[in-house]
Amino acid sequence: MQPFMNDDFLLNTETARRLYHEHAAKMPIIDYHCHIPPQEIADDKQYDNITRLWLGGDHFGDHYKWRLIRSNGVDENLITGDAPDRERFQAFAEMLPRAIGNPMYHWTHLELKRFFGYDGVLNGDTAEEVWNLCNEKLKTLTVREMIRMANVDMVGTTDDPVDSLEAHARIKNDPTITTKVLPSWRPDKALNIHKEGFAEYIHKLSQVSGVEIDSVCALQEALKKRLDHFDEMGCRASDHGLDKIPYADLNEWDVEAIFSKGLAGEKVTDQEAEAFQFAMMLFLGREYARRGWAMQMHYGAVRNTNTRRFAELGPDTGYDCIGSTGDAKSIAAFMNAFEKTGELPKTILYSLNGADNAMLVTIAQSFQSNECRGKVQHGSAWWHNDTFEGMVQQIKELAERGLLGNFIGMLTDSRSFLSYTRHEYFRRIVCRVIGQWVEDGMYPADMDTLGKIVEDISYYNAKEYFNL
Amino acid sequence: MQPFMNDDFLLNTETARRLYHEHAAKMPIIDYHCHIPPQEIADDKQYDNITRLWLGGDHFGDHYKWRLIRSNGVDENLITGDAPDRERFQAFAEMLPRAIGNPMYHWTHLELKRFFGYDGVLNGDTAEEVWNLCNEKLKTLTVREMIRMANVDMVGTTDDPVDSLEAHARIKNDPTITTKVLPSWRPDKALNIHKEGFAEYIHKLSQVSGVEIDSVCALQEALKKRLDHFDEMGCRASDHGLDKIPYADLNEWDVEAIFSKGLAGEKVTDQEAEAFQFAMMLFLGREYARRGWAMQMHYGAVRNTNTRRFAELGPDTGYDCIGSTGDAKSIAAFMNAFEKTGELPKTILYSLNGADNAMLVTIAQSFQSNECRGKVQHGSAWWHNDTFEGMVQQIKELAERGLLGNFIGMLTDSRSFLSYTRHEYFRRIVCRVIGQWVEDGMYPADMDTLGKIVEDISYYNAKEYFNL
Amino acid sequence: MQPFMNDDFLLNTETARRLYHEHAAKMPIIDYHCHIPPQEIADDKQYDNITRLWLGGDHFGDHYKWRLIRSNGVDENLITGDAPDRERFQAFAEMLPRAIGNPMYHWTHLELKRFFGYDGVLNGDTAEEVWNLCNEKLKTLTVREMIRMANVDMVGTTDDPVDSLEAHARIKNDPTITTKVLPSWRPDKALNIHKEGFAEYIHKLSQVSGVEIDSVCALQEALKKRLDHFDEMGCRASDHGLDKIPYADLNEWDVEAIFSKGLAGEKVTDQEAEAFQFAMMLFLGREYARRGWAMQMHYGAVRNTNTRRFAELGPDTGYDCIGSTGDAKSIAAFMNAFEKTGELPKTILYSLNGADNAMLVTIAQSFQSNECRGKVQHGSAWWHNDTFEGMVQQIKELAERGLLGNFIGMLTDSRSFLSYTRHEYFRRIVCRVIGQWVEDGMYPADMDTLGKIVEDISYYNAKEYFNL
Repeated sequence: MQPFMNDDFLLNTETARRLYHEHAAKMPIIDYHCHIPPQEIADDKQYDNITRLWLGGDHFGDHYKWRLIRSNGVDENLITGDAPDRERFQAFAEMLPRAIGNPMYHWTHLELKRFFGYDGVLNGDTAEEVWNLCNEKLKTLTVREMIRMANVDMVGTTDDPVDSLEAHARIKNDPTITTKVLPSWRPDKALNIHKEGFAEYIHKLSQVSGVEIDSVCALQEALKKRLDHFDEMGCRASDHGLDKIPYADLNEWDVEAIFSKGLAGEKVTDQEAEAFQFAMMLFLGREYARRGWAMQMHYGAVRNTNTRRFAELGPDTGYDCIGSTGDAKSIAAFMNAFEKTGELPKTILYSLNGADNAMLVTIAQSFQSNECRGKVQHGSAWWHNDTFEGMVQQIKELAERGLLGNFIGMLTDSRSFLSYTRHEYFRRIVCRVIGQWVEDGMYPADMDTLGKIVEDISYYNAKEYFNL
Repeated sequence: MQPFMNDDFLLNTETARRLYHEHAAKMPIIDYHCHIPPQEIADDKQYDNITRLWLGGDHFGDHYKWRLIRSNGVDENLITGDAPDRERFQAFAEMLPRAIGNPMYHWTHLELKRFFGYDGVLNGDTAEEVWNLCNEKLKTLTVREMIRMANVDMVGTTDDPVDSLEAHARIKNDPTITTKVLPSWRPDKALNIHKEGFAEYIHKLSQVSGVEIDSVCALQEALKKRLDHFDEMGCRASDHGLDKIPYADLNEWDVEAIFSKGLAGEKVTDQEAEAFQFAMMLFLGREYARRGWAMQMHYGAVRNTNTRRFAELGPDTGYDCIGSTGDAKSIAAFMNAFEKTGELPKTILYSLNGADNAMLVTIAQSFQSNECRGKVQHGSAWWHNDTFEGMVQQIKELAERGLLGNFIGMLTDSRSFLSYTRHEYFRRIVCRVIGQWVEDGMYPADMDTLGKIVEDISYYNAKEYFNL
Repeated sequence: MQPFMNDDFLLNTETARRLYHEHAAKMPIIDYHCHIPPQEIADDKQYDNITRLWLGGDHFGDHYKWRLIRSNGVDENLITGDAPDRERFQAFAEMLPRAIGNPMYHWTHLELKRFFGYDGVLNGDTAEEVWNLCNEKLKTLTVREMIRMANVDMVGTTDDPVDSLEAHARIKNDPTITTKVLPSWRPDKALNIHKEGFAEYIHKLSQVSGVEIDSVCALQEALKKRLDHFDEMGCRASDHGLDKIPYADLNEWDVEAIFSKGLAGEKVTDQEAEAFQFAMMLFLGREYARRGWAMQMHYGAVRNTNTRRFAELGPDTGYDCIGSTGDAKSIAAFMNAFEKTGELPKTILYSLNGADNAMLVTIAQSFQSNECRGKVQHGSAWWHNDTFEGMVQQIKELAERGLLGNFIGMLTDSRSFLSYTRHEYFRRIVCRVIGQWVEDGMYPADMDTLGKIVEDISYYNAKEYFNL
């Protein structure tokens, strides 16, 4: 029996152990997509206690944890509410043993080990000692220290086009910060013409860009100015969080008219919204291609399903779920719309429904090119699938239909500075899967080639892909 | 090599063996959803021979077995027909070795071991000895004896609102029966407005309830009377078997008009039927919430696909298949319709398409509450997925996105009194999965905590969930 | 650690090793569905070098390999273009190590071992020695020699109704060819009324059959003549490659009018095309039933997604991907349309979306009959799923919902004469899965029964199914 989460955690073959310790573990981290607030790095934020760090406050925090505690029949007051932090921590600690098989169990203990030096098991009984230990450490463990401890080479934040990127500028100008902290362009609000607040957003964009936005053309002009600003600030990737990958035959739609409706605060239909989104994506994707940026497409979430809780807590508070499987024809047509004029940017496709994995890999494989290795990627297992089995499945489905050796690997997609341990979790799983193949005689035990593959997936592929 | 189905069947680690033998095996069974006829318990029915028990007669019996025998090219006469029972048994026994990897192979041998003390292998050659042995035992092995041998604490039958529950009353009044036999409320016929016989059913409901049903309001009044009767008889759960989870914007539909059409025997469209079903579910679910009942939603079967055989044999004879994946938005909207007024009952979601598992777990997790642990459950792998891999998948997908420790576990969904061994099969798999995690260093080898989790999933969680 | 791809490749238990070496390996191959050109057998074609054999030329070749090389950022000139063959081989060899976990890695090395006697590892460094070795062998290794070496009993090619089957006649009349080479009927072009070239195709069919085709009835008459010709030439199976399994209520459609539009070169809608296809399938399927042929239905591919590459390279060049999941109701209704009049032919269902596997098995199980064992089959993992995990999944999903013992097993679906090693790959996986079950105590270690099951799946079931 393997001891609980020791140094060889998840490494169940000799090959896996060597690959991890001699190769994967040594690589710096490129966290090319996350949701950490850059101002916290600029400010070198400190957290008052482990509850603030893990469970947050003011409705901003780790909704993965919130969901699990709720599922244990706990009152919201102890989750996102104003119960004392020590009590909220207790509710989390008492839930944790029930989360057997959940990645939260592993993430939590990896974080306790790597950042706080705690090698025990967190539960209701040990909550007090963990509380004390962590809070003591947090007196010196600032967010920059966390980044340093995790050996992070690059952080890709998620930023709105109207954002001034002021925090990024401060970071850039601070010679004591050696980690690259680069913005990522996430223009969802400029595309969500069917959602409340669209007109207000466009107004804001108008102000920030200095372009009067009274037409699609002007909207694109405004966005271009912001794209240029992001580019100057080192942006290498966009990110899009859409219900579905949009596609429409633009000959059949008057996009200008749809935009006018949106701007006037009128209701647009789902089909109109999709046509508008597709037209905007076509514009944006071509701009990304021109700038050498990667286009990240995250689709398949059904968000804010619980309207009562949404009214109380707002978005991103743990009420989003996996959507139905995607439409292969539309997704392929979306890709082809760029490809047919030779303007497809580097693209990373992520679905929240794991049943789409194999399909997405085969779509990605239909739009590769000689511009670079692995131009179109199937993204790492995302959100509700960012689990042991979810990652094993994504790795195998990619390997069996594409070139695993060219995979750009892991990202945290997280709001927490402790989540860099998810890269460790991922790398251990990669080494485990590969080690098992070697053990089974399915790949030669050639440690040079294997080591290179593991280092590439852990670090070098992403470094090359994002021109870092 | 592990000997064939010995005491450590499926228990491939020391942890799994200890968890099963010291914890899981000792727990009584709560079979909260099955299809056994309660009158057979009241009558303490005896079966003439093993064919009658396993293959049934008069088109009522184990369609799982029927499908497999058909697949072996056997004439229907030997399956559901009037061939001699010994010959029908032979056809089953000769098919069985071809069913390698099928749960039927394991269920059959578990039943032979646990109820008949037979430790051999059933096939064409041994059919004669098994036939003789089983038939000898069946002279004293009544259905109550089977229930006693299986250590069954509670049986939840499946009953129609118009059922008098007379058999349940006889059981309740019989002090020699210590197992709780409780009705479950299955009002499918009152909701299937698009199917033949709807008007007749409403007429019958009218008679049984004493309410003249000429409006939706009156229909609900009649159902309420029956709900009260079921509640008095100890009912703790409803069950719904629908093609899909219904959802509709009720502002757009005149439900009263739809009901009038149905009552008049007129054809209603699929959309009208869905709107009616959703309106009725809203009413019923709120009633369940009021009574503390659980709402079981089984969706995703395509039934009676083979119309020629349906004409000959009727429903539930082995011609139902797995339907397409479900619509996440509708299912979430269905749940939210209750939740937004605080009237969501405890709910158990089951899909017949295993590709929906992960999605359903994430929907369930979006509607938890402080009323109890695990208020919304992802149901155990159902019907065509009630298999070794199907159960492993469901357990892991639940564990990775929810709290496995709060899972209410297994039910047989069966028409047979021998099927309690499926609980054993399930428990062995739970212990195997958990044992493997511990063996792999993914969870501490803390036998107290692990033992409690296994006992909870086997028994205590369901006991608490159904207020038993 | 198991050495790389030695004799016990994939055989990780003693039972698996015995089952493979003593049973599976000895069986001849029935390759009942492939895409090899029969004239190459008739001509006993020789290949100039390993590049021509593996990567082809003139846009005809192995698009599995092409996709992988493209994914490595290689120029098309080195893939399907006119770069020197030695350089194209180098590009393939340098990509190969990145394809860790991909079946291509195993297929390539199996082919090198079995046909060329090369036991090393192919990569950029060894490319030169492999190039020289293979080319030397290819001086005598003709396609007939490959077939002989692979112990192939039967080859089922894929042929168009207008094909004269002249090559088949030459093969039939050549007493030195002992392998049965039989045509399969693939009438996609006669059904694709919505695609370009339909009218031209019908014109050609008219000429070949000598029937003037001015009505659906005449079209069917023409096809009947060709069916008879195929039957005389030994055809035992049809094959259909459709976007989806077509189904329509024919009472609602004027099929004659749709056909007239198609014949006139007018555009038909998707719904019209589906109705026409369903009407034609009904006709064809009944003809198959009459002749004892099997009907193969391959659905779920999205083809030619990359229109720029399609314009350059044409179809079947590596731009096809997995489509969305299928519609269970339509597929069941399609099957029932034949079954209700007792005219369902033997049918093999294949989906390109693996998430449909379990659904398809349950549909197959709803239409079995006493005509033969396993009349309706779930086809072997196909194309993008013809992988290690894809095959394991298909085998288990079939076993858990049907009778694995009656499975007709593997086919190559390939354009290459070296692909017979995929049967070896499949058989090793079957033995591995079964061996693991036995090792786990899930099936008795009865080598006679197990050996028979393995031989049946490898050979005898297909032999019986196709009346060979």
